[in-house]
Amino acid sequence: MSLQPHHDGSATYVPEQEPALGQTVPVFVRVPAGADVRQVHLRTTGDGEPRFAEAVVDRTDGGDVWWRADVEVRNPVSNYRFLLAGARGYRWLNAAGLVDHDVPDNGDFKLVSYAPPPAWARDAVIYQIFPDRFARSAAADGRTAPDWAIPCDWDTPVIGRGPETPRQFYGGDLDGVTEHLDHLDRLGVNTVYLTPIFPARSNHRYDAASFDTVDPLLGGDAALARLAEAVHARGWRLLGDITSNHTGDAHEWFTRAVADVHAPERELYYFDAVTGDYESWNGVKSLPKLNWGSAELRRRFATAEDSLLRRWLRPPYALDGWRVDVANMTGRRGADAYTHEVARLLREVVADTRADGLLLAEHGHDHTGDLDRDGWHGTMNYVGFTDPVWSWLRQGDQPVPNFLGTPGGVRRRDAGAVLATMNTYRSLISWRSYVHSWQLLGSHDSARIRTVVGDAARQEVAAGLLATMPGTPVVFAGDELGLTGTNGEGSRTPMPWHRPESWDGRTFDAYRSLLALRRAEPALRHGGLRWVHADPDTLVFLREAPTGAVLVLARRAPGAPLRLAGLPAAENVYGDAPALRPGADGAVTLPADGPTFQVWRLA
Amino acid sequence: MSLQPHHDGSATYVPEQEPALGQTVPVFVRVPAGADVRQVHLRTTGDGEPRFAEAVVDRTDGGDVWWRADVEVRNPVSNYRFLLAGARGYRWLNAAGLVDHDVPDNGDFKLVSYAPPPAWARDAVIYQIFPDRFARSAAADGRTAPDWAIPCDWDTPVIGRGPETPRQFYGGDLDGVTEHLDHLDRLGVNTVYLTPIFPARSNHRYDAASFDTVDPLLGGDAALARLAEAVHARGWRLLGDITSNHTGDAHEWFTRAVADVHAPERELYYFDAVTGDYESWNGVKSLPKLNWGSAELRRRFATAEDSLLRRWLRPPYALDGWRVDVANMTGRRGADAYTHEVARLLREVVADTRADGLLLAEHGHDHTGDLDRDGWHGTMNYVGFTDPVWSWLRQGDQPVPNFLGTPGGVRRRDAGAVLATMNTYRSLISWRSYVHSWQLLGSHDSARIRTVVGDAARQEVAAGLLATMPGTPVVFAGDELGLTGTNGEGSRTPMPWHRPESWDGRTFDAYRSLLALRRAEPALRHGGLRWVHADPDTLVFLREAPTGAVLVLARRAPGAPLRLAGLPAAENVYGDAPALRPGADGAVTLPADGPTFQVWRLA
Repeated sequence: MSLQPHHDGSATYVPEQEPALGQTVPVFVRVPAGADVRQVHLRTTGDGEPRFAEAVVDRTDGGDVWWRADVEVRNPVSNYRFLLAGARGYRWLNAAGLVDHDVPDNGDFKLVSYAPPPAWARDAVIYQIFPDRFARSAAADGRTAPDWAIPCDWDTPVIGRGPETPRQFYGGDLDGVTEHLDHLDRLGVNTVYLTPIFPARSNHRYDAASFDTVDPLLGGDAALARLAEAVHARGWRLLGDITSNHTGDAHEWFTRAVADVHAPERELYYFDAVTGDYESWNGVKSLPKLNWGSAELRRRFATAEDSLLRRWLRPPYALDGWRVDVANMTGRRGADAYTHEVARLLREVVADTRADGLLLAEHGHDHTGDLDRDGWHGTMNYVGFTDPVWSWLRQGDQPVPNFLGTPGGVRRRDAGAVLATMNTYRSLISWRSYVHSWQLLGSHDSARIRTVVGDAARQEVAAGLLATMPGTPVVFAGDELGLTGTNGEGSRTPMPWHRPESWDGRTFDAYRSLLALRRAEPALRHGGLRWVHADPDTLVFLREAPTGAVLVLARRAPGAPLRLAGLPAAENVYGDAPALRPGADGAVTLPADGPTFQVWRLA
Repeated sequence: MSLQPHHDGSATYVPEQEPALGQTVPVFVRVPAGADVRQVHLRTTGDGEPRFAEAVVDRTDGGDVWWRADVEVRNPVSNYRFLLAGARGYRWLNAAGLVDHDVPDNGDFKLVSYAPPPAWARDAVIYQIFPDRFARSAAADGRTAPDWAIPCDWDTPVIGRGPETPRQFYGGDLDGVTEHLDHLDRLGVNTVYLTPIFPARSNHRYDAASFDTVDPLLGGDAALARLAEAVHARGWRLLGDITSNHTGDAHEWFTRAVADVHAPERELYYFDAVTGDYESWNGVKSLPKLNWGSAELRRRFATAEDSLLRRWLRPPYALDGWRVDVANMTGRRGADAYTHEVARLLREVVADTRADGLLLAEHGHDHTGDLDRDGWHGTMNYVGFTDPVWSWLRQGDQPVPNFLGTPGGVRRRDAGAVLATMNTYRSLISWRSYVHSWQLLGSHDSARIRTVVGDAARQEVAAGLLATMPGTPVVFAGDELGLTGTNGEGSRTPMPWHRPESWDGRTFDAYRSLLALRRAEPALRHGGLRWVHADPDTLVFLREAPTGAVLVLARRAPGAPLRLAGLPAAENVYGDAPALRPGADGAVTLPADGPTFQVWRLA
């Protein structure tokens, strides 16, 4: 097995990480010894016209030949790829890898000249909290459950599906979160993401009744201010969750719109002029859909000085950004296609309100068409990470429910298919959008990873990929304790603070060590991604940065020892495998046991 | 070898060929006997949200099981694909074919609810004429060559590259075209496409000096009216060629813009406010680039009642549409990205001027991102047809110049790579855009097919693919006589009317027979495309319509006899092969000789 010619958007290959329109920037291709490459051309498509330029050898380094070419950042998104000529013919090198037939431009590498995401996001490790289920402060006992709620004791089993599902009320609140930040600190995260905190008529609060105040059941505005202060005091970040696709039917905008066809709020929604019926999220009438064709909506939601988008980004709350709910449907309805316009508008307003604000979009399927448009900084990468990892590590042959809705649930796939899927989705977006997208093993909208993979050993492999692949790792609160859940609603499990004996210590330690490793190794946060090997049960890749490189081995089952040529000696920095020492033939041997997750730092 | 599950956008699979927004239309999947399919689901993404619906068995027909599902035409372009479940697992069926890992939505099948292209375009066979080189009428002798021209005798060799290239003036004119329409009739085409006919300072006339009049050197407006009348009298169509990306520097708009910075024409171009320099096509200063940010340009070019776009679509010229030059760059410049807006605008104006007008875009590379947007009806499909066919049929090992500019010229590829390339590009656009795009073996911008493939036998294979694949066939005048040319300019060969002994009769007969076959077989014009076999030297496919089906065999070299299961008896309708008769095992045998091109009509 030998290494392949490689390029990606990381600093090793693209030293200028914030290219400006009109700039010309060098890009590099690494060609390992023995690869059949005699000549390299760069292909660009500035202003819609393909052009070729010959690359030159920049240097030779440890057997690798580094070719250099210059790309003009001619357009806001500037495409490029490479043509490699060798004795055995021509191959394209694009973001999906090496191909030996002609390919469309959609898989090209992309330089994006729009303003980059905030610098802190590159190093973020996110902890997702579903407030009703995280922790109750003492104040929670003094609150009366609302009319819609079924009050639950913290130990009441969560009902995963049924009419009672959105009504089970456990009474977690924001001061409860504030009181448990030490747990997050031990785990090693640095960003708190809260699902919605506005008043609503459900435990998930995605049916906002107002955007003007924090739900008093969560402690109100003051509790958010306290949490924000505590989070920021640790040097961490705090993210909110905003519903841009719909409100609840109890929202003051909607009730006014229903009450009076001449109300200014009427145009914020989609009412049928004849029947008076209205459009709603997937036909759920409690979630009336917002109409982004409305200038008044754009004003209230975004552009006004006191808009909801702006207000919570300002002190004393100073949210560091928003996760945008149902971004995939926002602005889309029949012939209406405002999504990209809305994304750009929200980005502009966020940036205008605070320069370091993050705007991250929910997307539960193919998100690639919605990125690199000066809108969302990234999306939730379910399709390019969660689903392939699940399909590789899922237990047994019983159906595993699929958050993508795919009939038959999550398929069991070998590593080759996992890699093909990851590569395809990654190839359609810029490196910047890829690394700023959220890498999850699950969320409040999916089964929990522990249930999917079945045991701690395979969860460790999953957590290993979460912590070592490019993308922003997101831990759904409770995953680190080995909590289970068979579907989205069922995984909204109360945190068992009062039952420490139920915590899976091995899993917590694995998460903690893996996140610590990510903090310690710049290559894991900012490095490139070079795949080295895939067989059905095994994935091996390199993360490489100018500051150093690590080699990662993930196995879902025992296999054969793996011989790898072209690598230096390496110390094991995660797992229990021996150091790697090149043998007489120059190859190193990776261990055969599994499931296992191992990381080595290259000398 | 056995047939695979199949769907495409043709009427067999999508009976409603003009779906309207809001309509729900049935779509069908054909599953041949023996394919591992037990259940079929339809996946759609209406309003940005994936949904699955179970397909039902509609009928069983000759061993094929036909599954049916209903697609809501929820958005202007509505995506869908199929999930096939079988004993051995799950596969996706999208426009690229069957895949066993998760794939992005860009390869989905697409229903387009925008107004369809004019009906005549479905049956068009186009003949491309470069006026200076096609034919001189008697009137041509009385004209004086312009100052820029190097007058040439009809037998003067064409200079393919150099300063004299655009100045060689042969004096062909429009009455010359009119006088030779019988030749086109014998060949079997029904649409004449003229490269530019406006006054200019070059033989190609892509540097228009005016859009208001036909070049007097071509016979002026009256000659165009005469040609239009003669073409239309035969029931044919006539297409013009318009430069939307640039004008010539002698254009009256540009000279006024240069002369006076306050002239209303100044904003039609890109002048640097400081230096006074201006943007031009690929740095060629005689071709100043148009600025589509200018409302005045939009008015003059398109929307005004007397705009150039409208004027020539009206009697007595009544052009049936436009081929849009350099459409790939039109509206693109740095941060300006007006291309899709301009395409929509031109489409709207063409349709408003004449309901059956065609708008077809030049595109020399990946055109897929510019289609299905209510703009261009189709594009020149160099990347998805010309280049793969060239790479498969090119002669020897000497470099063949590549109109795409690819260093090293046209690669030699086996049929597998050819098929992968064709499938990839086709999968990114709707079936409608695919079949309305232009299928070429070359043009005035490329080498001639005869030079690429080297001999008449392989040119026949190329012409066979041209005449039998989906897409609008375009014959570049002279290809049918076996003319040669090593690059774009060099292929602008005067037609050897006066040397009939030089015509390649075998090639002319092949083109005539193949185009007659296309006229006779609705399946070749309106049928689906089902690939049956590819080995390095062989391509086999079916064209199927409700009215009948044909089987096509293309071989670039001799091979082994090919056994095909699942096909009925078939009569040979092109070539010299025997009829196909299923043997005792139910398989038919395709002959082994090559190069060859054979077509059978299925019983």
